[in-house]
Amino acid sequence: MSDELVLLEFWPSPFSTRVKIALEEKGITNYERREEDISNKSLLLLEMNPVHKKIPVLVHNGKPICESLVIIEYIDEVWKHNSPALLPSHPYDRAHARFWADFNDKMFVNSLRKIWRQKGGATDEDKKEFIGILRSLEAQLGDKPYFGGQTFGYLDAVLIPDYSWFHAYNKCEQVSIETECPTLDAWVKRCLLRDSVKRCLPDNVKLYESVLELKKMYGND
Amino acid sequence: MSDELVLLEFWPSPFSTRVKIALEEKGITNYERREEDISNKSLLLLEMNPVHKKIPVLVHNGKPICESLVIIEYIDEVWKHNSPALLPSHPYDRAHARFWADFNDKMFVNSLRKIWRQKGGATDEDKKEFIGILRSLEAQLGDKPYFGGQTFGYLDAVLIPDYSWFHAYNKCEQVSIETECPTLDAWVKRCLLRDSVKRCLPDNVKLYESVLELKKMYGND
Repeated sequence: MSDELVLLEFWPSPFSTRVKIALEEKGITNYERREEDISNKSLLLLEMNPVHKKIPVLVHNGKPICESLVIIEYIDEVWKHNSPALLPSHPYDRAHARFWADFNDKMFVNSLRKIWRQKGGATDEDKKEFIGILRSLEAQLGDKPYFGGQTFGYLDAVLIPDYSWFHAYNKCEQVSIETECPTLDAWVKRCLLRDSVKRCLPDNVKLYESVLELKKMYGND
Repeated sequence: MSDELVLLEFWPSPFSTRVKIALEEKGITNYERREEDISNKSLLLLEMNPVHKKIPVLVHNGKPICESLVIIEYIDEVWKHNSPALLPSHPYDRAHARFWADFNDKMFVNSLRKIWRQKGGATDEDKKEFIGILRSLEAQLGDKPYFGGQTFGYLDAVLIPDYSWFHAYNKCEQVSIETECPTLDAWVKRCLLRDSVKRCLPDNVKLYESVLELKKMYGND
């Protein structure tokens, strides 16, 4: 029996995009993407994720898997024979990757939300905090080409969609990630050359426009 | 070479307790527990968890693993030949367990913090939200003896330390979990009979006193 796979998504969401990249990396392209209208959520989304009512949800043979980090581990485990493995093989490296994914989702995402939802834009303190978070991540990258080491892996897939927002961030807040975090910026550019990433990332200009909409919605334009 | 294992902990913390239960379940008793003074953190803690500066940290042969859920997965992976396996074996069940652990840490913990840190105590709305969260978890338990199914597993270890606060909660807020969520309450009582849980849970009376201190600290006494 072939697998029936549906992804409930919302195109600008980095949480959707990281799942799409994970699927691409595993060579899973035969699945249906259903775009959600976030202001008018589908009955399917409400049924598949009654707890949080949020995208992304991966529906695998009728069964829902929710929360992007949980979904990526699920993909890596179900399609464990599809190369590459996304999580590292050693328990310590796996713990390290999970820690930094969690760090990103707690720290980076919250910092970015604060900046964009704040009336009058980012304060100098907000920007400093934001850059501090990026530098913590940059220190983890060190001189490796990818967070996964020599190869693109779980943490790269988790992080890159957030960092593709750099363009929008640069334009909105006049902070240059290229200058502030050159190693991280080089990693972004390296990832952007990758087929799986190129195929899944939303268009930068379209994303920038959606950020402007978002800022307007929060009275921060 | 035998493993050198140190747990940096704080006795009332449910996050520390869940790690201790996981170690007990795996039969790992030969480790050092170092109690942290949260108001004057040790240099070792600051060095081992420079990012969040929080307990628990498991230091395994000199290398730190941080964040309780990450630590429990690490324990399950490193000591994979020690029975029982904590995470379920099927990827879907694993995703389900991870989802509900994450739900607990986002929803239950925040709801409880709100209640205890709020001047004047919990409002009726807070209590309703809190009970709603418990009922969501209760629905997941269904008629199984444990969240792990027939056997105590990952999600039981993750959740039980939070629910051992019920006693304190009942006394502070006059909400009876026994009446509101009888199935969940029966699960708590079942877990409390278990050796691994009994050995690791803090004393109820001592915990209640520390909750009173906490409420006082937040001007909510």
